Amino acid sequence: MSEPSLEDVWAAHERIAGHVLRTPVLTCRSLDRMCGAELFFKCENFQKAGAFKIRGAANAVFSLGEAEASAGVATHSSGNHAAALALAASWRGVPAFVVMPENAPAVKKAAVAGYGATISFCRPTLEAREKALAEVVSRTGAAVVHPYNDDRVIAGAGTAALELLEDAPDLDAVVAPVGGGGLLSGTAVAAQALSPGTRVIGAEPGGADDAFRSLEAGRILPSVHPLTMADGLLTSLGDRTFPLIRRLVSRIVRVDEADIAQAMRHIFERMKLVVEPSAAVPLAALLGRSDEPLGPRVGLILSGGNVDLNRLPW
Amino acid sequence: MSEPSLEDVWAAHERIAGHVLRTPVLTCRSLDRMCGAELFFKCENFQKAGAFKIRGAANAVFSLGEAEASAGVATHSSGNHAAALALAASWRGVPAFVVMPENAPAVKKAAVAGYGATISFCRPTLEAREKALAEVVSRTGAAVVHPYNDDRVIAGAGTAALELLEDAPDLDAVVAPVGGGGLLSGTAVAAQALSPGTRVIGAEPGGADDAFRSLEAGRILPSVHPLTMADGLLTSLGDRTFPLIRRLVSRIVRVDEADIAQAMRHIFERMKLVVEPSAAVPLAALLGRSDEPLGPRVGLILSGGNVDLNRLPW
Repeated sequence: MSEPSLEDVWAAHERIAGHVLRTPVLTCRSLDRMCGAELFFKCENFQKAGAFKIRGAANAVFSLGEAEASAGVATHSSGNHAAALALAASWRGVPAFVVMPENAPAVKKAAVAGYGATISFCRPTLEAREKALAEVVSRTGAAVVHPYNDDRVIAGAGTAALELLEDAPDLDAVVAPVGGGGLLSGTAVAAQALSPGTRVIGAEPGGADDAFRSLEAGRILPSVHPLTMADGLLTSLGDRTFPLIRRLVSRIVRVDEADIAQAMRHIFERMKLVVEPSAAVPLAALLGRSDEPLGPRVGLILSGGNVDLNRLPW
Repeated sequence: MSEPSLEDVWAAHERIAGHVLRTPVLTCRSLDRMCGAELFFKCENFQKAGAFKIRGAANAVFSLGEAEASAGVATHSSGNHAAALALAASWRGVPAFVVMPENAPAVKKAAVAGYGATISFCRPTLEAREKALAEVVSRTGAAVVHPYNDDRVIAGAGTAALELLEDAPDLDAVVAPVGGGGLLSGTAVAAQALSPGTRVIGAEPGGADDAFRSLEAGRILPSVHPLTMADGLLTSLGDRTFPLIRRLVSRIVRVDEADIAQAMRHIFERMKLVVEPSAAVPLAALLGRSDEPLGPRVGLILSGGNVDLNRLPW
């Protein structure tokens, strides 16, 4: 099975262009000074459904043939991917089936239902989720779209880096957060082919550092009890994302929780942007290393803005 | 003494163009649906020093002759105007003297000092402020730039509406918050001359409703004990802003505190933008009136983003 290539990212970009937003790239002088580099922030917090996830979900949904699509799409997720898949399915006019843990936050249940998906609740264990998803698929015939371990999702996620490098060429580095690795691997596929001199860096919470440990070990070592406020980054690399990351990503930088909260606050205060904790992890990886900057020009992907405003981490 | 005209706003725009940002105009489908109108948000929260205030301050500072400017500029303010004047003075390379009440928040003192201004502290009464300012002026010869009751400041503030109407033409209404009336009167001068079919509406907290009462009475009735979370709107109309507002503004809509907090939260959640409470007052004036919209196309000025993230109103 071949890996996603720049051509797949281009094809995804064309496929989803009429649906997703071309988000702006913003800059901030005071954060530049703090980091000792010129920073270019790709604002996926402004994206449809509030996160980059719609890029991969839409690419997967619009890649399906007519017959396959008509049975709908299905996934298990309690986060941004569930809402994104529901929205993408509504654009194509096909049903979406989402398995969510019964203890998912009410606001997330409401978002997924608001996009017209059919929700099945299950107990909050991976085993229960997978069983519930298998039941939904056998009953409906829906096509499963995994949140990250899917080449269509990886290629779709890579379209953010494609746009970032068009708007801010000649970057010395691009930093993306890493959870399951869909965004990081898609970013690496796009950046390495478009701009071979640009290093791709993953930024990972120390409390969910499976990507760091997996790259050290040379094989996938999933997080067992991941613990971080960056709730989009609790997942572990999969067999589609790991090889791409191993081959194309320069390094993984681990950050601690206090630095994530601090970076998130800087983005609110200095850039006047609402971002979720996961989106602040790349800036956290740059802050405090102005003595050893990643380069004069660094791109960062602000992955999403879906944060509970009643539980800001300060 | 003639009033500021569209020509003055154009001149201000040219004078400050190399210094202030041309902020973007953003839209939001879900807020459109809530308000029953297409909304165009002029994002002055992204502006230098975090608020539209730099437009008026920079216009005043760069309007001064060489000799006058060399003695510096002075004001009393504990808010966005103080930081804006300090920053504008630093651009021109002249001193800024700011009188602040001794109980001003540390973060505001730090911002003003960070732009290089000399701060004089006084007791937190209007009388003490004015006395301290008079002393500073007699000692330094600095030119006073009032936060809003100044034609240069009014013309500078009007440049935001100029850009808004260029980027989003044919608006049926423009809604701006009203405190001392600098932004609202400048907006009205620009909009009424550029686009006579566009109604200009002031949005005012019910707890600081001097503009509403003054227009009813036909004379300035200052707020005596204004009380609102919209800390940029505690001031009362002055003799330069009141006549413009009386002549050019269609109406003042009063909003209550719960609606301000709700509107602010919608802007955070739906638009992913950090705004201060004052900036949310125009949206508060539109929410819940979808049965009686101000028009199919409505502009709103998001006046600033300098909010204490430890004290969000929810």
